[in-house]
Amino acid sequence: MFFTFDGLDGVGKTTQIRLFCDWLRGRGLTVCECRDPGSTPLGDRVREIVLHAPDDTPICARSEMLLYMAARAQLVEQVIRPALARGEVVVSDRYLLANVVYQGHAGGLAVDAVRAVGEVATDGLTPDATFLLDLDPAIADERMQRERDRMERRGDDYRRRVREGFLAEGAANADRIHVIDAGRSVEEVGKQIRTLAERLL
Amino acid sequence: MFFTFDGLDGVGKTTQIRLFCDWLRGRGLTVCECRDPGSTPLGDRVREIVLHAPDDTPICARSEMLLYMAARAQLVEQVIRPALARGEVVVSDRYLLANVVYQGHAGGLAVDAVRAVGEVATDGLTPDATFLLDLDPAIADERMQRERDRMERRGDDYRRRVREGFLAEGAANADRIHVIDAGRSVEEVGKQIRTLAERLL
Repeated sequence: MFFTFDGLDGVGKTTQIRLFCDWLRGRGLTVCECRDPGSTPLGDRVREIVLHAPDDTPICARSEMLLYMAARAQLVEQVIRPALARGEVVVSDRYLLANVVYQGHAGGLAVDAVRAVGEVATDGLTPDATFLLDLDPAIADERMQRERDRMERRGDDYRRRVREGFLAEGAANADRIHVIDAGRSVEEVGKQIRTLAERLL
Repeated sequence: MFFTFDGLDGVGKTTQIRLFCDWLRGRGLTVCECRDPGSTPLGDRVREIVLHAPDDTPICARSEMLLYMAARAQLVEQVIRPALARGEVVVSDRYLLANVVYQGHAGGLAVDAVRAVGEVATDGLTPDATFLLDLDPAIADERMQRERDRMERRGDDYRRRVREGFLAEGAANADRIHVIDAGRSVEEVGKQIRTLAERLL
């Protein structure tokens, strides 16, 4: 099984992923936890560029999307496919959906083009289920306690478009993208995720 | 006008590009010379990864292709399109064709998939003419006088497949890819390139 978590920064992905992986392990499953971009030497280098490059390194929307795709291709090849082949449950912090939303819906690239590149980058590997944590961007922003990266500094309008893009993707793919109200307590959100996962496992 | 040079390392691209750009400037044209990957801060960072990353940073064919595409998207956006808009002649050391050949024909990725990603990365910008310098890989290898990078260390079989891929692409796109016999003297090769360009300018 391949699960992914997505949503705006500040919605509580890190906390919920930790709880979810603990719960999976408690059921005796072996969990492969990863983050996209990241979790490979190449992915870490790409992450550094795309999230922390200095402002004198312009990165256009197309390049940004392709850098994420390069990191993801390596993640699929080196981490996710081998883990699935070993029978592990893979849980990824973000995946292709984030590109479709951040650079497509919110960033102005054609959504179909992003999806087509994603198909090549992932070699067609789609998550069995995505937990999309949804929250008002203003509240998500307040929750953020660390320094903002390149994505997070893009302002309220951008974050609103991101949220709308996520919800549009969730509505169009309701069979595999589960929209979760992240405005509730950590325990309530975690319980809903476990209930959904239980049906799939 | 947008010209590109391509071919195996060691076929004399650098020398011919220098001669060609001098000739263009001698005709009173403003020349924008660039290399792909490179010629932007992002392109230089990607170039460093893709050609010089240490061996403990595995890069699969898909990632490699996508990294080149990310550098190229930025090059098109930041350098090539603005130069063309100013009426300059753009001359690029490599472009999309290299990906089609190195990661597609020679590297095992589906050629159509590489082309489809290339269409997105370049936003559909195709060179008016490509000068493809063709030479026996063994001779090209002898001519190389600098330290080999990641691509160049891949051995004879790979270079043979690259040459065959280049020739197949040249044959299939004879209207815009000009295959040049690079086994002749620098002067002869240069003269043929100038004759071809003269017709286009």
